[in-house]
Amino acid sequence: MEAERRRAEALDAADPLTALRGRFLLPDGVVYLDGNSLGALPAHVPAVLDDVVRRQWGTDLIASWEAGGWWTAPERAGAKVARLVGAHPDEVVVTDSTSVDLFKVLAAGARLRPGRARLVVEPGSFPTDLYVAAAVADLLGLQLDRVAPADLAAHLAAHGGDVAVVAYSHVDYRTGELLDLPGLTALAHRAGALSCWDLSHSAGALPVGLAEHGVDLAVGCGYKYLNGGPGAPAYLVVARRHHGALTNPLPGWTGHARPFAMEGSYEPAAAVSRMRSGTPPVLSLLALDAALDVLQDVDLAALRARSLSLTGLLVELVGAHVPSLRVVTPRDPARRGSQVSLAHPQAQRVVRDLAARGVVGDFREPDVVRLGVAAPYVTHADVVTTVERLREVAP
Amino acid sequence: MEAERRRAEALDAADPLTALRGRFLLPDGVVYLDGNSLGALPAHVPAVLDDVVRRQWGTDLIASWEAGGWWTAPERAGAKVARLVGAHPDEVVVTDSTSVDLFKVLAAGARLRPGRARLVVEPGSFPTDLYVAAAVADLLGLQLDRVAPADLAAHLAAHGGDVAVVAYSHVDYRTGELLDLPGLTALAHRAGALSCWDLSHSAGALPVGLAEHGVDLAVGCGYKYLNGGPGAPAYLVVARRHHGALTNPLPGWTGHARPFAMEGSYEPAAAVSRMRSGTPPVLSLLALDAALDVLQDVDLAALRARSLSLTGLLVELVGAHVPSLRVVTPRDPARRGSQVSLAHPQAQRVVRDLAARGVVGDFREPDVVRLGVAAPYVTHADVVTTVERLREVAP
Repeated sequence: MEAERRRAEALDAADPLTALRGRFLLPDGVVYLDGNSLGALPAHVPAVLDDVVRRQWGTDLIASWEAGGWWTAPERAGAKVARLVGAHPDEVVVTDSTSVDLFKVLAAGARLRPGRARLVVEPGSFPTDLYVAAAVADLLGLQLDRVAPADLAAHLAAHGGDVAVVAYSHVDYRTGELLDLPGLTALAHRAGALSCWDLSHSAGALPVGLAEHGVDLAVGCGYKYLNGGPGAPAYLVVARRHHGALTNPLPGWTGHARPFAMEGSYEPAAAVSRMRSGTPPVLSLLALDAALDVLQDVDLAALRARSLSLTGLLVELVGAHVPSLRVVTPRDPARRGSQVSLAHPQAQRVVRDLAARGVVGDFREPDVVRLGVAAPYVTHADVVTTVERLREVAP
Repeated sequence: MEAERRRAEALDAADPLTALRGRFLLPDGVVYLDGNSLGALPAHVPAVLDDVVRRQWGTDLIASWEAGGWWTAPERAGAKVARLVGAHPDEVVVTDSTSVDLFKVLAAGARLRPGRARLVVEPGSFPTDLYVAAAVADLLGLQLDRVAPADLAAHLAAHGGDVAVVAYSHVDYRTGELLDLPGLTALAHRAGALSCWDLSHSAGALPVGLAEHGVDLAVGCGYKYLNGGPGAPAYLVVARRHHGALTNPLPGWTGHARPFAMEGSYEPAAAVSRMRSGTPPVLSLLALDAALDVLQDVDLAALRARSLSLTGLLVELVGAHVPSLRVVTPRDPARRGSQVSLAHPQAQRVVRDLAARGVVGDFREPDVVRLGVAAPYVTHADVVTTVERLREVAP
């Protein structure tokens, strides 16, 4: 594939974003296509964390809650996430895990639509989203409707007046399909329901435009395209217009208006800060806070263009050179997230053999080879290498 | 106070646990009496965390979920906590924050006692415990009873058949009073209620004996006497006899029986692992996991004896030399946790002036100078230094 490699190298050379790779530490000789599971390590993070541990914790001790910016880190990191998802800075807070955050926004959202007894989720969602939604429905006495996006309009036509929240994932973790966030949000709104999006597989990879599209609620993961480190805290988003009536179903002292007054009764903090609960895991949180700086000066439209160029090339070359693999991800760029999923009867073996040849993707049940394409550190040349290896392991 | 200093130095010299101080990094010239807010940095943790960041995350990437022991860290750290609180290893899991964990065990506990509509909490609890209990009561339609421990017997005599859970804190965060865990647990059980304890201010400081005393549920903080680092994940405990009927009100994919099968319906993992929710914050979690090793070979009865010797000396010397301060903490060792709280009309100023002289405690509303005594790294000589400084700032 010499011609393809020359073409890829030309594409990389022409794209200023190729230089972003220098902001990450990655092992030599590895093509890392699992950034949608665990984002790569930003080069400046180890030194930041070493300072957090040795000086801020070890030497400055409790003074760091103020002086080290620990106390305000959930809002500070939240504001950085806000830029990536197109929200206002005071609409996002970094806290807990995606599961806990989804629990909180779904329960809070349902209470913003009292009298409506249905919660709509996507049947193919990441499982934890389904478990959490079922738990919220159970606790609040709601009915859980599993409705595919294609059926949402019909479902809302029949039951819309009874739907409190429509909760979907922006990008399907398995197929890589990008849902029509503006259109589905508008559908939910037309029925008077709130719209909630799990952005775990889109934030940091493509523009989301939450405020522009009037999204009410969102959550997302800190450790995929945000590169916050393993199990990095998640974030949740609540649109400003809901802050006044917003209650946290899991209120803790860090979400209190005056946390250090240690008052026996709960009075919520301003804006989205009231959605904080307990003390945040500071080491993980500050790694994420630092990691978010990697993308703060990056134009998201340009990043999206690079991502589509990379995934488009991968789809094209697999189609041309690896007939054993079926492309699961939509070929239409408007419906494609930042990954390429390939079906193969021996997908698990293919992933293992790929890894042995230095190309790291992952396997998803039942038959999917999942290749995440993080545009900040994956190159067009990496795509060609990947296809060469795929030809070897899945001829 | 030369005689007192010689006596203190003799006590330190005679106690083999004095050597534990070498396991921590603390700034020179500082007497650190805030380990009940943020435990000191164990000396081996920075190198552990550097390896986690640079090698496990940066180089080994997703392989570390298995090879780095990330996946099993909540149970591994949980087993270490279990030793400190006298639980069985499969009864404890490290997950989320204390607030979220309390939410989970209270809601799960109430469901283990269906038909009982009351939740008993302590009026003077750490505020977050009250907020969370109120939220659980609200969600489950329970009545929240604020009952002081001294009134529990009478309350249960009147309403015991309707009480699902009695939730208390083992040590009062403000006064340092140690509650009678065995007696209050027995009272709850006699009424058919479950017993739940917040161990944030006792675990790691004194033997707790959860299994011995038949405690049903517990939670606690990882960043105080467990030295897990700022905002370290918390832990929750559920006694084995409840595992069969136990449901997680906040179920997530990491608590599923087969998490990587990505099944649409939830089937709980074995034992207490089902109480896990989302992906854990690995950096913070592994810092705690490493920090817990500091206490694994320490005899807890000996640690408790040292703690009482330290707090006893502090109470004695304050009483003898600093008349402006009123000792709030019980003088009876059997009712004393591992801190000494001193009331002063200008408590906040006293704490500030103390810190300026190298003695770090903290202020708690309305008038409490709170001095945490972490026996592994506080010495009897430190106690004498503290009293000397108190005489200067609160004559």
